[in-house]
Amino acid sequence: MSLQIALTKGRLEESAVEMLDQCGYGIDRLRHKGRALVFQDTKKEIRYFLSKANDVITYVEHGVADIGIVGKDTLLEGGQDYYELLDLGIGQCRFILAGLPDHNPLQKVGHLRIGTKYPSVTRTYFRNMGMDPEIIKIDGSVELGPLLNLCDAIVDITETGTTLKENGLIIYDEVCRISARAIVNKASFKLKRDEVMQVINDLKGVMNNAEGN
Amino acid sequence: MSLQIALTKGRLEESAVEMLDQCGYGIDRLRHKGRALVFQDTKKEIRYFLSKANDVITYVEHGVADIGIVGKDTLLEGGQDYYELLDLGIGQCRFILAGLPDHNPLQKVGHLRIGTKYPSVTRTYFRNMGMDPEIIKIDGSVELGPLLNLCDAIVDITETGTTLKENGLIIYDEVCRISARAIVNKASFKLKRDEVMQVINDLKGVMNNAEGN
Repeated sequence: MSLQIALTKGRLEESAVEMLDQCGYGIDRLRHKGRALVFQDTKKEIRYFLSKANDVITYVEHGVADIGIVGKDTLLEGGQDYYELLDLGIGQCRFILAGLPDHNPLQKVGHLRIGTKYPSVTRTYFRNMGMDPEIIKIDGSVELGPLLNLCDAIVDITETGTTLKENGLIIYDEVCRISARAIVNKASFKLKRDEVMQVINDLKGVMNNAEGN
Repeated sequence: MSLQIALTKGRLEESAVEMLDQCGYGIDRLRHKGRALVFQDTKKEIRYFLSKANDVITYVEHGVADIGIVGKDTLLEGGQDYYELLDLGIGQCRFILAGLPDHNPLQKVGHLRIGTKYPSVTRTYFRNMGMDPEIIKIDGSVELGPLLNLCDAIVDITETGTTLKENGLIIYDEVCRISARAIVNKASFKLKRDEVMQVINDLKGVMNNAEGN
């Protein structure tokens, strides 16, 4: 039986492909580098999709993909109709609360505006502190928000903090840590259980090897 | 008094910059090409932002920008707290309903699934025909939806139809025609009326000249 695996374009792409390569799967690097959105494994009965993070969840929820590899940041914000089976340990970064120096949003008196690509994560974070700020959804260049006075602070993901520093922003709090996860379509988990678990176990094996080194 | 103008990155960018250039404004092409997200007009008291389409609306609604240039497609899907003052005539394209040959979604019996980046436009279109399909939000590569059997058909924008053809899709209906619009922050329209109308009239002048040629 053949499997479909959806991979997230961008930040996670290289490390996910690397892991599958270490599993001994036949990722055709040339086709992958050629930006094909759909490509076939050269050794296994697996077809890969290269998709935007939200679409990886959509593909898995609707059964277009049996397995998806996607960041916890997107999972926290998006749908819920899938099984999350494995923390892959790759793509590690943090959700942070950041703003301009001497403008700690947690100490602001009066109306507070938070800019973010992740309204749901942001709402939950502030609710847990008994706060209810105005949340402004920003699609790109979130770090410009405080500089343009669109918002008082931002909730965003950061790996190294470089973009924040370049824009003169400082971190006021860590919201949570995130990493990439393997998610599975609910029907596939029953109907293709052996094939799905083979992939999950292969990925686990690579993780254990990496820890052993 | 200085003005802030938000421009949409991508498809509309070049034609909008071209229009402002024809207005005699000092768009610094080098800085623009250097992908600066914020840059100053070299002749006028104008600061430009280069933003994602949704963010252009957000900037205008929150007063970070006085004027925004953005596609009607995004306006139809997004917020409403602004004045739409001018159809610029640039960035013309169409919302279409497309699918695989011999799979006319309007004739399908039973459950219908439509993939789109524009759920609101799609819902309105089908409601006007007395239909209530399942709408699947897709973030990227919408045209893959029918090929992967994620959906029966798509509602998307197209300029030339090339991407549709490349994916073997045909157009079953035109939903509406769209083009870029100038939108204005409500407070700016009162408080900076002269400056705002100067820009609008300059843009109108360029459009009239283009028509005259």
